[in-house]
Amino acid sequence: MAELAFEDFTPGRVFDLGRITVDRDEMIAFARRFDPQPFHLDEQAGKESIFGQLAASGWYTCGLWMRAYVDHVLSRAVALGSPGGEEISWPAPVFAGDLLAASLEILGARRSRSRPELGLVTLGARMYRGDTPVFRATFTGMFGVRTA
Amino acid sequence: MAELAFEDFTPGRVFDLGRITVDRDEMIAFARRFDPQPFHLDEQAGKESIFGQLAASGWYTCGLWMRAYVDHVLSRAVALGSPGGEEISWPAPVFAGDLLAASLEILGARRSRSRPELGLVTLGARMYRGDTPVFRATFTGMFGVRTA
Repeated sequence: MAELAFEDFTPGRVFDLGRITVDRDEMIAFARRFDPQPFHLDEQAGKESIFGQLAASGWYTCGLWMRAYVDHVLSRAVALGSPGGEEISWPAPVFAGDLLAASLEILGARRSRSRPELGLVTLGARMYRGDTPVFRATFTGMFGVRTA
Repeated sequence: MAELAFEDFTPGRVFDLGRITVDRDEMIAFARRFDPQPFHLDEQAGKESIFGQLAASGWYTCGLWMRAYVDHVLSRAVALGSPGGEEISWPAPVFAGDLLAASLEILGARRSRSRPELGLVTLGARMYRGDTPVFRATFTGMFGVRTA
Protein backbone atom coordinates (compact mmCIF):
# COMPACT_ATOMS: atom_id res chain seq x y z
CA MET A 1 0.00 0.00 0.00
CA ALA A 2 1.34 3.41 -0.98
CA GLU A 3 2.13 5.77 1.82
CA LEU A 4 0.42 8.87 0.39
CA ALA A 5 -3.22 8.93 -0.74
CA PHE A 6 -5.57 11.79 -1.60
CA GLU A 7 -6.29 12.40 2.10
CA ASP A 8 -2.64 13.29 2.72
CA PHE A 9 -2.63 16.19 0.27
CA THR A 10 -4.12 18.78 2.59
CA PRO A 11 -4.17 22.41 1.46
CA GLY A 12 -1.24 24.33 2.91
CA ARG A 13 1.02 21.28 3.24
CA VAL A 14 4.47 21.84 1.73
CA PHE A 15 6.70 19.01 0.53
CA ASP A 16 10.44 19.61 0.36
CA LEU A 17 11.64 18.07 -2.91
CA GLY A 18 15.36 18.47 -2.21
CA ARG A 19 18.14 20.27 -4.05
CA ILE A 20 19.44 19.83 -7.58
CA THR A 21 22.67 21.04 -9.18
CA VAL A 22 22.17 21.87 -12.86
CA ASP A 23 24.49 19.74 -14.99
CA ARG A 24 25.88 21.71 -17.92
CA ASP A 25 26.24 18.79 -20.32
CA GLU A 26 22.76 17.43 -19.70
CA MET A 27 21.25 20.93 -19.88
CA ILE A 28 22.77 21.43 -23.34
CA ALA A 29 21.93 17.91 -24.54
CA PHE A 30 18.29 18.46 -23.55
CA ALA A 31 18.19 21.76 -25.46
CA ARG A 32 19.84 20.18 -28.50
CA ARG A 33 17.01 17.63 -28.71
CA PHE A 34 13.95 19.59 -27.54
CA ASP A 35 14.66 23.33 -27.64
CA PRO A 36 17.65 24.10 -29.91
CA GLN A 37 17.60 27.89 -29.66
CA PRO A 38 21.11 29.43 -29.80
CA PHE A 39 20.99 30.89 -26.26
CA HIS A 40 20.31 27.37 -24.88
CA LEU A 41 23.19 25.79 -26.81
CA ASP A 42 26.07 28.17 -27.12
CA GLU A 43 27.96 30.24 -24.53
CA GLN A 44 28.52 33.20 -26.86
CA ALA A 45 24.90 33.27 -28.08
CA GLY A 46 23.82 33.15 -24.42
CA LYS A 47 26.02 36.16 -23.59
CA GLU A 48 24.48 38.17 -26.42
CA SER A 49 20.94 37.19 -25.44
CA ILE A 50 18.38 38.61 -23.05
CA PHE A 51 19.62 36.04 -20.48
CA GLY A 52 23.20 37.36 -20.31
CA GLN A 53 24.68 33.86 -20.42
CA LEU A 54 24.01 30.34 -21.63
CA ALA A 55 20.61 29.53 -20.11
CA ALA A 56 18.62 26.33 -19.63
CA SER A 57 15.52 25.60 -21.67
CA GLY A 58 12.53 26.27 -19.44
CA TRP A 59 11.35 22.74 -20.24
CA TYR A 60 14.57 21.32 -18.83
CA THR A 61 14.01 23.23 -15.59
CA CYS A 62 10.50 21.85 -15.61
CA GLY A 63 11.87 18.31 -16.10
CA LEU A 64 14.24 18.72 -13.16
CA TRP A 65 11.34 19.77 -10.95
CA MET A 66 9.20 16.87 -12.20
CA ARG A 67 11.90 14.32 -11.40
CA ALA A 68 12.23 15.70 -7.87
CA TYR A 69 8.43 15.50 -7.50
CA VAL A 70 8.42 11.85 -8.60
CA ASP A 71 11.31 10.93 -6.30
CA HIS A 72 9.94 12.64 -3.20
CA VAL A 73 6.17 12.38 -3.61
CA LEU A 74 4.70 10.44 -6.56
CA SER A 75 6.82 7.33 -5.94
CA ARG A 76 5.22 7.10 -2.47
CA ALA A 77 1.68 7.90 -3.65
CA VAL A 78 -1.34 6.40 -5.39
CA ALA A 79 -0.68 8.70 -8.36
CA LEU A 80 -3.10 8.62 -11.29
CA GLY A 81 -1.61 11.19 -13.65
CA SER A 82 -2.47 14.79 -14.44
CA PRO A 83 -4.90 16.41 -16.89
CA GLY A 84 -2.85 19.62 -16.99
CA GLY A 85 -2.48 22.96 -15.29
CA GLU A 86 -3.30 26.61 -15.37
CA GLU A 87 0.01 28.38 -14.84
CA ILE A 88 3.62 27.83 -15.75
CA SER A 89 6.31 30.45 -15.41
CA TRP A 90 10.03 30.97 -15.54
CA PRO A 91 10.56 34.25 -13.65
CA ALA A 92 14.37 34.08 -14.01
CA PRO A 93 16.75 32.10 -16.21
CA VAL A 94 18.55 28.98 -14.93
CA PHE A 95 22.28 28.57 -15.55
CA ALA A 96 24.71 25.65 -15.57
CA GLY A 97 25.96 24.88 -12.09
CA ASP A 98 22.98 26.50 -10.34
CA LEU A 99 21.90 24.90 -7.08
CA LEU A 100 18.10 24.80 -7.13
CA ALA A 101 15.75 24.05 -4.24
CA ALA A 102 12.48 22.40 -5.28
CA SER A 103 9.24 22.22 -3.37
CA LEU A 104 5.56 21.44 -3.76
CA GLU A 105 2.78 23.31 -2.05
CA ILE A 106 -0.72 21.86 -1.85
CA LEU A 107 -3.10 24.61 -2.95
CA GLY A 108 -6.43 22.77 -2.96
CA ALA A 109 -8.04 19.33 -2.86
CA ARG A 110 -11.46 17.91 -3.72
CA ARG A 111 -13.03 14.49 -4.27
CA SER A 112 -14.15 13.81 -7.83
CA ARG A 113 -17.94 13.80 -8.12
CA SER A 114 -18.04 11.51 -11.15
CA ARG A 115 -15.36 9.13 -9.83
CA PRO A 116 -15.50 9.00 -6.04
CA GLU A 117 -12.44 6.71 -5.81
CA LEU A 118 -10.34 9.60 -7.09
CA GLY A 119 -9.33 13.00 -5.70
CA LEU A 120 -8.14 16.08 -7.55
CA VAL A 121 -5.33 18.04 -5.94
CA THR A 122 -4.19 21.51 -7.00
CA LEU A 123 -0.41 21.47 -6.88
CA GLY A 124 1.95 24.43 -6.66
CA ALA A 125 5.38 23.66 -8.10
CA ARG A 126 8.20 25.94 -6.99
CA MET A 127 11.92 26.07 -7.64
CA TYR A 128 14.38 28.64 -6.28
CA ARG A 129 18.04 29.57 -6.69
CA GLY A 130 18.68 31.14 -3.30
CA ASP A 131 15.88 33.70 -2.90
CA THR A 132 15.21 33.95 -6.63
CA PRO A 133 12.22 32.01 -7.98
CA VAL A 134 13.15 30.32 -11.28
CA PHE A 135 10.16 28.04 -11.87
CA ARG A 136 6.55 28.09 -10.82
CA ALA A 137 3.57 26.06 -11.99
CA THR A 138 0.04 25.33 -10.85
CA PHE A 139 -1.45 22.08 -12.04
CA THR A 140 -3.81 19.29 -11.09
CA GLY A 141 -2.79 15.87 -9.80
CA MET A 142 -5.15 12.91 -9.54
CA PHE A 143 -4.72 10.60 -6.56
CA GLY A 144 -6.46 7.50 -5.26
CA VAL A 145 -8.49 7.96 -2.09
CA ARG A 146 -7.76 5.79 0.94
CA THR A 147 -11.38 5.61 2.10
CA ALA A 148 -13.07 4.91 -1.26
CA MET B 1 17.96 39.22 -40.78
CA ALA B 2 15.48 36.69 -39.48
CA GLU B 3 12.44 36.09 -41.59
CA LEU B 4 9.83 36.37 -38.81
CA ALA B 5 9.54 39.36 -36.48
CA PHE B 6 6.83 40.46 -34.05
CA GLU B 7 4.81 42.00 -36.91
CA ASP B 8 4.39 38.57 -38.53
CA PHE B 9 2.62 37.04 -35.55
CA THR B 10 -0.83 38.32 -36.32
CA PRO B 11 -3.77 37.02 -34.27
CA GLY B 12 -5.54 34.22 -36.10
CA ARG B 13 -2.50 33.09 -38.05
CA VAL B 14 -1.85 29.35 -37.81
CA PHE B 15 1.56 27.76 -38.33
CA ASP B 16 1.73 24.11 -39.38
CA LEU B 17 4.53 22.53 -37.33
CA GLY B 18 4.54 19.22 -39.18
CA ARG B 19 4.05 15.64 -38.06
CA ILE B 20 5.96 13.57 -35.52
CA THR B 21 5.99 9.84 -34.92
CA VAL B 22 6.47 9.00 -31.24
CA ASP B 23 9.60 6.88 -30.78
CA ARG B 24 9.08 4.22 -28.12
CA ASP B 25 12.71 4.05 -26.93
CA GLU B 26 13.12 7.80 -26.62
CA MET B 27 9.72 8.13 -24.93
CA ILE B 28 10.76 5.61 -22.26
CA ALA B 29 14.27 7.07 -21.89
CA PHE B 30 12.77 10.51 -21.29
CA ALA B 31 10.43 9.14 -18.63
CA ARG B 32 13.26 7.21 -16.95
CA ARG B 33 15.19 10.47 -16.46
CA PHE B 34 12.45 13.05 -15.86
CA ASP B 35 9.18 11.31 -14.97
CA PRO B 36 9.80 7.71 -13.83
CA GLN B 37 6.23 6.75 -12.95
CA PRO B 38 5.50 3.06 -13.65
CA PHE B 39 2.85 3.74 -16.36
CA HIS B 40 5.45 5.76 -18.31
CA LEU B 41 8.11 3.01 -18.09
CA ASP B 42 6.53 -0.40 -18.17
CA GLU B 43 4.05 -1.99 -20.59
CA GLN B 44 2.26 -3.99 -17.88
CA ALA B 45 2.01 -1.04 -15.47
CA GLY B 46 0.63 1.00 -18.37
CA LYS B 47 -2.06 -1.63 -19.04
CA GLU B 48 -3.15 -1.59 -15.41
CA SER B 49 -3.21 2.21 -15.28
CA ILE B 50 -5.83 4.83 -16.06
CA PHE B 51 -4.19 5.15 -19.53
CA GLY B 52 -4.84 1.53 -20.61
CA GLN B 53 -1.34 1.13 -22.03
CA LEU B 54 2.20 2.44 -21.72
CA ALA B 55 1.81 6.22 -22.06
CA ALA B 56 4.22 9.07 -22.68
CA SER B 57 5.09 11.56 -19.96
CA GLY B 58 3.16 14.73 -20.67
CA TRP B 59 6.47 16.59 -20.52
CA TYR B 60 7.82 14.44 -23.33
CA THR B 61 4.79 15.33 -25.47
CA CYS B 62 5.47 18.94 -24.58
CA GLY B 63 9.13 18.55 -25.63
CA LEU B 64 8.09 17.09 -29.00
CA TRP B 65 5.82 20.06 -29.63
CA MET B 66 8.55 22.51 -28.56
CA ARG B 67 11.08 20.98 -30.95
CA ALA B 68 8.60 21.27 -33.83
CA TYR B 69 7.97 24.91 -32.84
CA VAL B 70 11.72 25.66 -32.88
CA ASP B 71 12.23 23.91 -36.23
CA HIS B 72 9.30 25.56 -37.99
CA VAL B 73 9.04 28.99 -36.36
CA LEU B 74 11.63 30.04 -33.77
CA SER B 75 14.63 29.16 -35.93
CA ARG B 76 13.31 31.66 -38.50
CA ALA B 77 12.39 34.36 -35.95
CA VAL B 78 13.88 37.05 -33.71
CA ALA B 79 12.94 34.96 -30.68
CA LEU B 80 13.66 36.37 -27.23
CA GLY B 81 12.42 33.62 -24.93
CA SER B 82 9.24 33.15 -22.91
CA PRO B 83 8.26 34.23 -19.40
CA GLY B 84 5.68 31.42 -19.15
CA GLY B 85 2.09 30.59 -19.85
CA GLU B 86 -1.38 30.29 -18.46
CA GLU B 87 -2.62 26.90 -19.62
CA ILE B 88 -1.15 23.49 -20.26
CA SER B 89 -3.21 20.38 -20.80
CA TRP B 90 -3.00 16.77 -21.88
CA PRO B 91 -6.59 15.90 -22.82
CA ALA B 92 -5.65 12.35 -23.94
CA PRO B 93 -2.63 10.10 -23.41
CA VAL B 94 0.09 9.72 -26.07
CA PHE B 95 1.33 6.24 -26.98
CA ALA B 96 4.45 4.85 -28.67
CA GLY B 97 4.10 4.90 -32.45
CA ASP B 98 1.47 7.66 -32.45
CA LEU B 99 1.56 10.02 -35.41
CA LEU B 100 1.02 13.52 -34.03
CA ALA B 101 0.23 16.70 -35.96
CA ALA B 102 1.57 19.86 -34.32
CA SER B 103 0.47 23.42 -34.89
CA LEU B 104 0.70 26.90 -33.44
CA GLU B 105 -2.12 29.41 -33.41
CA ILE B 106 -1.46 33.08 -32.75
CA LEU B 107 -4.00 34.17 -30.14
CA GLY B 108 -2.89 37.74 -29.46
CA ALA B 109 -0.06 40.23 -29.90
CA ARG B 110 0.95 43.52 -28.29
CA ARG B 111 4.03 45.75 -28.18
CA SER B 112 5.75 45.97 -24.82
CA ARG B 113 5.20 49.36 -23.19
CA SER B 114 8.36 49.26 -21.10
CA ARG B 115 10.54 47.85 -23.92
CA PRO B 116 9.28 49.09 -27.28
CA GLU B 117 11.82 47.00 -29.23
CA LEU B 118 9.98 43.90 -28.05
CA GLY B 119 6.55 42.41 -28.70
CA LEU B 120 4.59 39.91 -26.61
CA VAL B 121 2.71 37.24 -28.52
CA THR B 122 0.11 34.91 -27.01
CA LEU B 123 0.76 31.50 -28.49
CA GLY B 124 -1.62 28.56 -28.70
CA ALA B 125 0.20 25.23 -28.89
CA ARG B 126 -1.81 22.30 -30.24
CA MET B 127 -1.04 18.68 -30.96
CA TYR B 128 -3.47 16.07 -32.33
CA ARG B 129 -3.52 12.33 -33.02
CA GLY B 130 -6.07 12.25 -35.83
CA ASP B 131 -9.04 14.19 -34.44
CA THR B 132 -8.03 13.69 -30.83
CA PRO B 133 -6.29 16.60 -29.11
CA VAL B 134 -3.40 15.30 -26.98
CA PHE B 135 -1.61 18.53 -26.03
CA ARG B 136 -2.65 22.12 -25.64
CA ALA B 137 -0.91 25.10 -24.10
CA THR B 138 -1.26 28.87 -24.04
CA PHE B 139 1.88 30.81 -23.36
CA THR B 140 3.70 34.04 -24.13
CA GLY B 141 6.53 34.44 -26.60
CA MET B 142 8.74 37.52 -26.83
CA PHE B 143 9.87 38.62 -30.28
CA GLY B 144 11.92 41.47 -31.67
CA VAL B 145 10.01 44.09 -33.64
CA ARG B 146 11.04 44.92 -37.19
CA THR B 147 10.15 48.62 -36.95
CA ALA B 148 11.68 49.42 -33.56
